[in-house]
Amino acid sequence: MSLKRVGILTGGGDCSGLNAVIRAVTRSAIINYEAEVIGIEQGFEGLIFNRNRKLTVAGTKDILALGGTILGTTNKGDPFEYRQFDQDGHVTTQDYSQQTIENFKRLDLDCLFVVGGDGTLQIGYRLFQKGLPVIGIPKTIDNDLVGTDYTFGYQTAVQVACDALDRLQTTGESHHRVMILEVMGRSAGWIALEAGISGGAHVILIPEIPYDLEKVLEKINLRAEGGSPFSVMVVAEGAKEIGKEAITSEAASTRLQGVAQLGGVGNYIAKQLSDRIDLEVRCTVLGHTQRGGTPLAFDRILGTRLGTQAVQAAAEGKFGTMVALKSQEIVLVPLESLAGIVRNIPNDSQLIRTAEAIGVSLGR
Amino acid sequence: MSLKRVGILTGGGDCSGLNAVIRAVTRSAIINYEAEVIGIEQGFEGLIFNRNRKLTVAGTKDILALGGTILGTTNKGDPFEYRQFDQDGHVTTQDYSQQTIENFKRLDLDCLFVVGGDGTLQIGYRLFQKGLPVIGIPKTIDNDLVGTDYTFGYQTAVQVACDALDRLQTTGESHHRVMILEVMGRSAGWIALEAGISGGAHVILIPEIPYDLEKVLEKINLRAEGGSPFSVMVVAEGAKEIGKEAITSEAASTRLQGVAQLGGVGNYIAKQLSDRIDLEVRCTVLGHTQRGGTPLAFDRILGTRLGTQAVQAAAEGKFGTMVALKSQEIVLVPLESLAGIVRNIPNDSQLIRTAEAIGVSLGR
Amino acid sequence: MSLKRVGILTGGGDCSGLNAVIRAVTRSAIINYEAEVIGIEQGFEGLIFNRNRKLTVAGTKDILALGGTILGTTNKGDPFEYRQFDQDGHVTTQDYSQQTIENFKRLDLDCLFVVGGDGTLQIGYRLFQKGLPVIGIPKTIDNDLVGTDYTFGYQTAVQVACDALDRLQTTGESHHRVMILEVMGRSAGWIALEAGISGGAHVILIPEIPYDLEKVLEKINLRAEGGSPFSVMVVAEGAKEIGKEAITSEAASTRLQGVAQLGGVGNYIAKQLSDRIDLEVRCTVLGHTQRGGTPLAFDRILGTRLGTQAVQAAAEGKFGTMVALKSQEIVLVPLESLAGIVRNIPNDSQLIRTAEAIGVSLGR
Amino acid sequence: MSLKRVGILTGGGDCSGLNAVIRAVTRSAIINYEAEVIGIEQGFEGLIFNRNRKLTVAGTKDILALGGTILGTTNKGDPFEYRQFDQDGHVTTQDYSQQTIENFKRLDLDCLFVVGGDGTLQIGYRLFQKGLPVIGIPKTIDNDLVGTDYTFGYQTAVQVACDALDRLQTTGESHHRVMILEVMGRSAGWIALEAGISGGAHVILIPEIPYDLEKVLEKINLRAEGGSPFSVMVVAEGAKEIGKEAITSEAASTRLQGVAQLGGVGNYIAKQLSDRIDLEVRCTVLGHTQRGGTPLAFDRILGTRLGTQAVQAAAEGKFGTMVALKSQEIVLVPLESLAGIVRNIPNDSQLIRTAEAIGVSLGR
Repeated sequence: MSLKRVGILTGGGDCSGLNAVIRAVTRSAIINYEAEVIGIEQGFEGLIFNRNRKLTVAGTKDILALGGTILGTTNKGDPFEYRQFDQDGHVTTQDYSQQTIENFKRLDLDCLFVVGGDGTLQIGYRLFQKGLPVIGIPKTIDNDLVGTDYTFGYQTAVQVACDALDRLQTTGESHHRVMILEVMGRSAGWIALEAGISGGAHVILIPEIPYDLEKVLEKINLRAEGGSPFSVMVVAEGAKEIGKEAITSEAASTRLQGVAQLGGVGNYIAKQLSDRIDLEVRCTVLGHTQRGGTPLAFDRILGTRLGTQAVQAAAEGKFGTMVALKSQEIVLVPLESLAGIVRNIPNDSQLIRTAEAIGVSLGR
Repeated sequence: MSLKRVGILTGGGDCSGLNAVIRAVTRSAIINYEAEVIGIEQGFEGLIFNRNRKLTVAGTKDILALGGTILGTTNKGDPFEYRQFDQDGHVTTQDYSQQTIENFKRLDLDCLFVVGGDGTLQIGYRLFQKGLPVIGIPKTIDNDLVGTDYTFGYQTAVQVACDALDRLQTTGESHHRVMILEVMGRSAGWIALEAGISGGAHVILIPEIPYDLEKVLEKINLRAEGGSPFSVMVVAEGAKEIGKEAITSEAASTRLQGVAQLGGVGNYIAKQLSDRIDLEVRCTVLGHTQRGGTPLAFDRILGTRLGTQAVQAAAEGKFGTMVALKSQEIVLVPLESLAGIVRNIPNDSQLIRTAEAIGVSLGR
Repeated sequence: MSLKRVGILTGGGDCSGLNAVIRAVTRSAIINYEAEVIGIEQGFEGLIFNRNRKLTVAGTKDILALGGTILGTTNKGDPFEYRQFDQDGHVTTQDYSQQTIENFKRLDLDCLFVVGGDGTLQIGYRLFQKGLPVIGIPKTIDNDLVGTDYTFGYQTAVQVACDALDRLQTTGESHHRVMILEVMGRSAGWIALEAGISGGAHVILIPEIPYDLEKVLEKINLRAEGGSPFSVMVVAEGAKEIGKEAITSEAASTRLQGVAQLGGVGNYIAKQLSDRIDLEVRCTVLGHTQRGGTPLAFDRILGTRLGTQAVQAAAEGKFGTMVALKSQEIVLVPLESLAGIVRNIPNDSQLIRTAEAIGVSLGR
Repeated sequence: MSLKRVGILTGGGDCSGLNAVIRAVTRSAIINYEAEVIGIEQGFEGLIFNRNRKLTVAGTKDILALGGTILGTTNKGDPFEYRQFDQDGHVTTQDYSQQTIENFKRLDLDCLFVVGGDGTLQIGYRLFQKGLPVIGIPKTIDNDLVGTDYTFGYQTAVQVACDALDRLQTTGESHHRVMILEVMGRSAGWIALEAGISGGAHVILIPEIPYDLEKVLEKINLRAEGGSPFSVMVVAEGAKEIGKEAITSEAASTRLQGVAQLGGVGNYIAKQLSDRIDLEVRCTVLGHTQRGGTPLAFDRILGTRLGTQAVQAAAEGKFGTMVALKSQEIVLVPLESLAGIVRNIPNDSQLIRTAEAIGVSLGR
């Protein structure tokens, strides 16, 4: 039940609440165990290339309300398959896992806290299998991780989208327009679905339910005929038409991933609708405003609880696990149980049925 | 599996999300069952005195983001013990339950949705025992109801308090002051505890843990000595000193309940501290800004889910139950299982230990 | 000094604060003059086609915090040149001015309050020249109207964009990315410039200063070399490269105006940068979230002041004028002095020099 | 037109936007003049006791959105009459002005930027008269400084109060209560008046217009009779009844100023009303949440503009002046023209008449 020295890294896309985790790990490791805390920079890259710094109570005192991660993060730092672009833009991969493990050993850490989503946690699990004392802390803005009720950052993203919908409602109604909001969600539609329900959207399109354009038009026209010549739609970036590929998929596989939003699905559907209805159509692409910025209280608390319990789990030697929210308690689940499973929204889930029960069209 | 006509009332203190429930009940009863929906005004008073109106999809279309309850509510409308003040300000009570039941029968309702806290739900249960087809929908800003993971309105209240703490942090630090924030919570300290954790409070005082003034002073002084000559405190309105009564208790028992905040616990502690430390002390009393106003997405979704599932439960004839959030699903629990139990924060609960693990003083 | 019956219409794009104006006109006309107030629907279309309704104190009581306009609005209702699309999508125009004037006379109004931007106010002025008692109330989200210090709705739009920048800062820094925010502003860059200054942007591109891509790259690279491998940019939708047309101009002239954002300037620049730098680039298009939604206090007060003073001007018979904010007072300016002039940002204005003085690049 | 070394201090109560000023002064002095910038800590105390530190572009990069002042501030640091409390709590004053001037000279500064309200600016003026190259930057949350249209921090305070009113409206209406919001404003009622207008208050009580309780009751009762049995009131902390002293005055003169809110005017009026009406009354005391926290875009821009222009004025040797907002430009006004004048709201000003024109009662 003692900790001398622990490390923490954040990997994958950032989201609100990461700094709450870093602060909680730092404070509870120092206050309760007098441990030293090492912050590893830019995800696993910091282990591969030996970039890190000491974290202190004083140095983490003002970060609770701060978005992003003070440690930095990256999507491309897998030590087992480190991706690099050569001069022609081609990807090459290299295995740095041995170097990673050696660097870890040199740091002499009792535990490595790996904060990240599916990909990051799987890397953590592989390192655990190779003998590293890893504890996972789940993070995904998309809320699509199995094993935990909620991930931090998700509520904040839903709120940002809900606020945008509140704004689009009044302008849509004033102008008799169809307002489209494109939100995050490549493979799971949680943000779109919950933002849509909370923002009073009339149509919600998610990756799990390929949409039928005729059904969408039907809903918009029905509303117009009923005296509401405007509609508000939420579209997950991974939404796709029945029988077609998602719009983003091609772009995402190239180096131009950076501008995957160019001609994204929101604008694509805006064009589709414009060709078929008399109402004007407008599209808003929230993009990374959903990731950054000050977290809601909910995400700060969840991050703080996960960080604190992770430190306790480390002190108890429970490696190879992930801290997770179950109902109202933080519990431990084995990292191996995650196994790269994405938690999609089942088509007949209670939440889907709720949306349809209050009259929302899911394009089916 | 059919519904012809249903009624809904909101009782007790208002909170954010009530209108989301009313809208969801109205929409899902009409859209899925072609039922008529009757809104009963000002809680049970509307049944006692026969005040109600028809609710429609059009009439509830803009209320999702609206605070309060379009049906009105009251704290004093118990049909079994209806309280009235005579001219001298004395309270008299009268039993209107028979009249209530007769009015209900005249409305010819298949179900009565009772949205409220502990008190309101108990009245609902008594009416169910007398034969009324009641379904409860839990509501309490204090989050202290048993049987459900969260109540709607609570997250919004925590967020309002967290936002206030964010503001108090910078001014406290700039001026070297102790900033006190008094929040809601007469018997349970959930708002204070979660707002405090999320807002980076240094001291959190809750009703469940009577505070030792010396411990509070110790924390403030320790911080000042460590180079942080300022502190931020959250105080639940029901916080009390070891061996003493809560400050609000006397006032609350008189007709002047309306101004119970006069000389409330926040200002009382401000005075206590001012007498003992050199730092200036300032107090903010958030009061009903925690109740009113637009709900967070979380509370809108929770309210919508509860309302929709309540209608389905009604269609399935599952009366005498309450809809409740368990992990990620809405489930049914028997009204009788609530039995007036307040869900306080156990002194050794995980959340309490989390606060202390990151260095927060709970005044003990 | 008496008013019997007045009318009000809102024209052009909506913005936050329109309902504050409508409420103030309604309340002050009724409370101070016992006048009747007629709300004309969907801008001048409501006069052309005789669509209107009575406005009351009770009917406008909850609209102060509401976005949009309860009267509706449209961009295409010029009575002198009413635009319609035939079946092939071609535009035809028709002169409805005589019909408009006749409808106005039938309404027997002492004054017509015309709330709108440059185009709407010019129509108002032409109707005034034809004998109608018109008073203008300035509105443009772009803040580019001459004659008034500020227009309502503008501060709210700047705030929405500033909030987005706050969110983009942390995610950009965490990931080492260039974050682009595209905001409103076809011909004037006020929103981009003020949002950029307040949100700490490193590059701000406005229509008034065509950008030199090399200068933008220089700034981004300089920052990266100085240890800040990320940048945040604000781009007005009318921003254009030196020697090139604005990206939106072509789309805007076709019927597909509705999806003018498709491949807008933000994404165009994202692509340009991606081809030249190693950092990833991401783009957010705020779109109509800048128009809709609850107004800031500033815009509610400005709208209320303008509406109240407009009614007083009407009672004093000062037609052909526009109410305007000058320093701290609402004053009257002649409608004819506006003459279709757009208030662009002078290239050497104090505000421009302020931005450059703190190190912001304007791409020149 | 050169600057080698400049100093900046912030004095008096803090408000949102101070850090925007500090950042703008730092950046524009360094970027444009390669000057060194010295931050003086805790107002004039930092000059008296020689506490200061160097400010850099890197060190001020994340403070634009941060409330408070990174330099600290104090209300009691007048070098000419430095107040100290002896052990019995008695105040003694001492003249440290000579020491202040000597410390200033030792710092070898070309200019001292004094950011503060009336009191702080007057001290600055006295130091200027004694030969120091002082430039003032106006700051007061109360907006009651002569010479400038607006002060930064004020809009943020109004917005915080307006947001609170939005929340109080719905809960007041749901419960049939009178909701009182006590806001800042000891001698001037700008915050109360503008927050009240923007938040739809029915009664606004300001220091400039002593209130007649009967008039307040009349308004509340009239509303109740008209079918609106609830009212929302804003009360400036310096509001007073006709013929009586302000409630806060006594407390403010003692050492217990720290808890002046105890039994403040909001709760006093709540008690007065409770004794005379049947509606319940509730009171919220916003306190220092109006001062702290992230500034609105408006205040960040104003702070940035003032800071930048102050540096330019320094480079031009225009000492003994204050930068000020006039309409849309930052101009210079002589410090001597301020002369301790508080800008109260004239009883017949346009803003007052606006409030009454839309039916707000000012208690007269």
